[in-house]
Amino acid sequence: MNHSSLSAIGEGRSRVVIENVQPTVDAGRFAIKRTPGEPILVTADIFADGHDVVRAQILHRQQGESTWQVEPLESLVNDAWRAEFTLMEVGRHEFALRGWVDGFVTWHRDLKKRIAAGQDVKIDLQIGAKLIGEAADRAEAVNVHGQDAARLRHWQELLAQGNDVAAYQTAADELDEITARYPDLRYATTSQPFGVIVDSERARFSTWYELFPRSTTGDESKHGMFRDVIGWLPRIAEMGFDVVYLPPIHPIGEQFRKGKNNRVTAEPGDVGSPWAIGGADGGHKAILSELGTLDDFHALLAAAHTRGIDVALDIAFQCSPDHPYVKEHPEWFKQRPDGTIQYAENPPKKYQDIYPFDFETSDWQGLWRELTDVFLYWCEQGVRVFRVDNPHTKALPFWEFCISEVKAQYPEAIFLSEAFTRPKIMYRLAKLGFTQSYTYFTWRNTKQEFTEYLTELTQTPVREFFRPNFWPNTPDILPEHLQVGGRPAFIARLILAGTLSSNYGIYGPAFENMEHLPREAGSEEYLDSEKYQNRAWDFTGPENLGGVIGALNRIRRQNPALQYTTGLTFHPTDNEHLLCYSKSTADGCNRVLVVVNLNFYGEEQGFVDLNLGELGLSGDRPYQLHDLLNDATFHWQGQRNFVKLEPAASPAHIFRIAQA
Amino acid sequence: MNHSSLSAIGEGRSRVVIENVQPTVDAGRFAIKRTPGEPILVTADIFADGHDVVRAQILHRQQGESTWQVEPLESLVNDAWRAEFTLMEVGRHEFALRGWVDGFVTWHRDLKKRIAAGQDVKIDLQIGAKLIGEAADRAEAVNVHGQDAARLRHWQELLAQGNDVAAYQTAADELDEITARYPDLRYATTSQPFGVIVDSERARFSTWYELFPRSTTGDESKHGMFRDVIGWLPRIAEMGFDVVYLPPIHPIGEQFRKGKNNRVTAEPGDVGSPWAIGGADGGHKAILSELGTLDDFHALLAAAHTRGIDVALDIAFQCSPDHPYVKEHPEWFKQRPDGTIQYAENPPKKYQDIYPFDFETSDWQGLWRELTDVFLYWCEQGVRVFRVDNPHTKALPFWEFCISEVKAQYPEAIFLSEAFTRPKIMYRLAKLGFTQSYTYFTWRNTKQEFTEYLTELTQTPVREFFRPNFWPNTPDILPEHLQVGGRPAFIARLILAGTLSSNYGIYGPAFENMEHLPREAGSEEYLDSEKYQNRAWDFTGPENLGGVIGALNRIRRQNPALQYTTGLTFHPTDNEHLLCYSKSTADGCNRVLVVVNLNFYGEEQGFVDLNLGELGLSGDRPYQLHDLLNDATFHWQGQRNFVKLEPAASPAHIFRIAQA
Repeated sequence: MNHSSLSAIGEGRSRVVIENVQPTVDAGRFAIKRTPGEPILVTADIFADGHDVVRAQILHRQQGESTWQVEPLESLVNDAWRAEFTLMEVGRHEFALRGWVDGFVTWHRDLKKRIAAGQDVKIDLQIGAKLIGEAADRAEAVNVHGQDAARLRHWQELLAQGNDVAAYQTAADELDEITARYPDLRYATTSQPFGVIVDSERARFSTWYELFPRSTTGDESKHGMFRDVIGWLPRIAEMGFDVVYLPPIHPIGEQFRKGKNNRVTAEPGDVGSPWAIGGADGGHKAILSELGTLDDFHALLAAAHTRGIDVALDIAFQCSPDHPYVKEHPEWFKQRPDGTIQYAENPPKKYQDIYPFDFETSDWQGLWRELTDVFLYWCEQGVRVFRVDNPHTKALPFWEFCISEVKAQYPEAIFLSEAFTRPKIMYRLAKLGFTQSYTYFTWRNTKQEFTEYLTELTQTPVREFFRPNFWPNTPDILPEHLQVGGRPAFIARLILAGTLSSNYGIYGPAFENMEHLPREAGSEEYLDSEKYQNRAWDFTGPENLGGVIGALNRIRRQNPALQYTTGLTFHPTDNEHLLCYSKSTADGCNRVLVVVNLNFYGEEQGFVDLNLGELGLSGDRPYQLHDLLNDATFHWQGQRNFVKLEPAASPAHIFRIAQA
Repeated sequence: MNHSSLSAIGEGRSRVVIENVQPTVDAGRFAIKRTPGEPILVTADIFADGHDVVRAQILHRQQGESTWQVEPLESLVNDAWRAEFTLMEVGRHEFALRGWVDGFVTWHRDLKKRIAAGQDVKIDLQIGAKLIGEAADRAEAVNVHGQDAARLRHWQELLAQGNDVAAYQTAADELDEITARYPDLRYATTSQPFGVIVDSERARFSTWYELFPRSTTGDESKHGMFRDVIGWLPRIAEMGFDVVYLPPIHPIGEQFRKGKNNRVTAEPGDVGSPWAIGGADGGHKAILSELGTLDDFHALLAAAHTRGIDVALDIAFQCSPDHPYVKEHPEWFKQRPDGTIQYAENPPKKYQDIYPFDFETSDWQGLWRELTDVFLYWCEQGVRVFRVDNPHTKALPFWEFCISEVKAQYPEAIFLSEAFTRPKIMYRLAKLGFTQSYTYFTWRNTKQEFTEYLTELTQTPVREFFRPNFWPNTPDILPEHLQVGGRPAFIARLILAGTLSSNYGIYGPAFENMEHLPREAGSEEYLDSEKYQNRAWDFTGPENLGGVIGALNRIRRQNPALQYTTGLTFHPTDNEHLLCYSKSTADGCNRVLVVVNLNFYGEEQGFVDLNLGELGLSGDRPYQLHDLLNDATFHWQGQRNFVKLEPAASPAHIFRIAQA
């Protein structure tokens, strides 16, 4: 008999099994995500052979700590266990489960049955004395002169005589209480550790305003600077945004610079695309001189911070042919047989103004270090929020390394992933560490589409690692419904984004001004896109959406239910254009009901069938709905109620609900 | 910046991700189970950053082999991949998935697009020449003078000139074909290995007959012997059983021996319980002398094998106070303060005739070795099938070790787990290596109960590791419905067991004779149970069920659909007493439809709504149903058809279906 495997087992007396631990991501390969104070409800199946009593605990600690915090697990039916705990410190944590067969508790349970059955328990009391003595040994190991050890020794001696059941019975509760503090963990089973990333609160609740700093002078011919952006901050803060996000602020390449509307050749004076990064003045750690100096940038950060606003930078890992890396590190790019560097392509399309990095370079370690240093550099300048351009075209293992390195020093850093392509890559990036992600919201239009997509995001394991950030528009995406749907479409998409998702953002100037013309029919590109030219913006027009945007953001700030993407329930309606859903806080204290008319062109009416149980409402008493958009108040009763929405007046209700 | 984690990464150029591999058990912690030839359909999500072409393979090998069998994975939509393969060798295997970014295939895909767009491809041909040269290097590493290497060198030279698109085009298909044999696997990602246990076919399809060898003389006063069992074999084989399972055959303890009907005190001549194992003649490796010698046992095995029958032994790891272990290894038992050994208890109940092993003994390694040797000893005697008594009261890690050790030498060994208690422990034992398991079938009675339980067993991940074995009765369990339901109940339960599950068994003599009297009202124990006394059996009575048992087993042998527990579909009926289900082989060639009247006391009739798609039937042509129990033939059409079952005539139909 070959017993080689026996020595590999280590401790065969660890009889407890820990299975099916939730929540976890890919069996613990990746961390779950929370923000400070968000409850973590852990469940698992924990059991042993036979009928001995199993006890179990949850252990958790922050990365770098050597000792575990220990909290009890509660036993449910059918060998299921649960514990709820919260973490307050931003950073990486881990938890593990520990279970063991508890000899003392088993003995005590059985002793009570024996006494109840009138059996002679002399030997059993002596067995108990031995177990109590072992607990006393463990108590003395902690504090040799402690009160606990002394009490246990006292009862050990008394029970060892084996003849005083009455004396034992006076001690029963005290014994339970003291021994519980000194369990015999020699053969305990401890699960693998499971990661928890605790992000700053802004990772969970944020409101983004994207703008091109060069378009902030009100004059197309005058290049905007950081100091002009400072002038925009009061309006942006007043509207309730807490992240101002800037496209790349670095020097822009000259070679193969794109002209207005993405023309292949630039005219003199064309400012080029900020994503063609790098020039004579530097690369990813430099600032385009037309925007100002590093000091000017610091001034912008300071001005933003005084208004509670984070400035987010767009990090796009690609180079113009003029980027210093091209000369300094030619090995980071693909070399062609003719000595040129491989530009970006999607054959037969060519993007000669862009050199992608070659992540199969033999110096991949140097490349990874340098790209990680780009984030660290901007963190050192005070930036904590990054939007990452096309992360799905960079080697995926790089992101796990990079984000982990940055967050080890700046645990509050936020990384927003722009990755619209394949859904599994989008999710993988979130698992690898991205804090928030762009989504398919922009292309979801029907009641069924919203219901299915939000159910996937909020009711499946995806919720543990993926935080959506909903964008009605971006400089790259003017969706068809905004091209044709008019003001109701803008308002409806805004309200959908800001109430379905706790994180949302707009490409602000174009959105506020309801820019809706595409470069050409069938395109999602803006006409005269800021990506390729300066624009002059005017926010004083009568149609400007700043008012409704500000109203929505105020509602979000005043209603904690809207500050979580979870807590979402859809409610049936009998009209396919009426989408009805509610958000509730975990404690049920804040309940918001939203009804949106998805038909931007005409009035829709119908009945909604509220899931009163999910809303914590009683069916037999009226409840009050306060429309937070227009301050109207309604009184409803029961689950079935009538709604009518005229899109020109308002395409949506946002009700706060209170039982009358 | 702390880059310590960079060195831990190893190879950062491995860009391919392999996720969500199925089928697996607990993320690969345990093996899936199959029998030879059963298809293994593996799916996974496999992708890389960007738009390069990913290729992937499945690797598999038997334990101990150093080289992998390699088969292609097929790419589906949305980054999903699949492969189906089969394993023919009984034993432990493993599979892994491998994916890589294929530079040649990517180049070739893009080149075709460039040529189609009329672009100058001189440089691209030169890039291809380099890739082809690298493939030639790999081909030469396999066979320096090989045809493939020579062809690749030829095309490398031609493409290196970069000016002969026409020449390239004549080579395109050949290049694809040859380079595919020499992929660049330097940066391939390989998944963890996932285990596959391939068991003998009998693990999947078996029919068990349990008998007490001591009750085989037809005379209660005359102790049956192995040679008497040999006399029973022709009848058992004729009825179609392929496993004859014997309760423990070892010496039985004298101390605290139980009397008839489990009386606390035995009378002189009482034979005791076979589960009180061990006496002066030995323990788990010895044979009760009243049953015969080891030679007699070998004769029984030989006689059974000539009839295609396996003899299964019941292994119960517990000792009577007279077991040699008690003296030889007192450290394997719990010692009490008074110097006695702790007997089995379920306080306040005491089982003084049984000493359980203490799996927390300091000599747990010695105990594990010895218990494993018990199986190996009987394997050496020719036994390959074991029923294990109460495995859930032995330390769970022991079973993983023990079964793995035994199957390393006897891969065809079958372990049937008796573990009725908590469902998660029942499943854990299956994960740890048990081949088959007792189930809750015995206590499932209603249509809803059968539907839910069988759906759990056949449609969830449970199916990958848990093989049910359905028992209408056992010596421990005379379920209530058999106490009161009469002949229709016996026949219905038999048919349910033998058609729902490909593995089933009966405690034969009692079942054949419709024994239905419990020891006392409300008990599931048999009156005058063979567990405590010899019985005389007569199989010649007019009510004997041997005929219908034989018919069912013939139907099972003739219909491959019934030889798998998977392939099950339930069909709705409009009568709650009518349970309707079908079994189909994977190729659809054998289709069996079963309708059972769950009301044992009266006729039931109603309509069944067949899922014609699952049955591979067309709705617009009639199909034929051949009732295999009574040879009647029906012709149905469409999904809705009428059924009437009079339990006294037959409580069930078993139809073979054929489209007319």
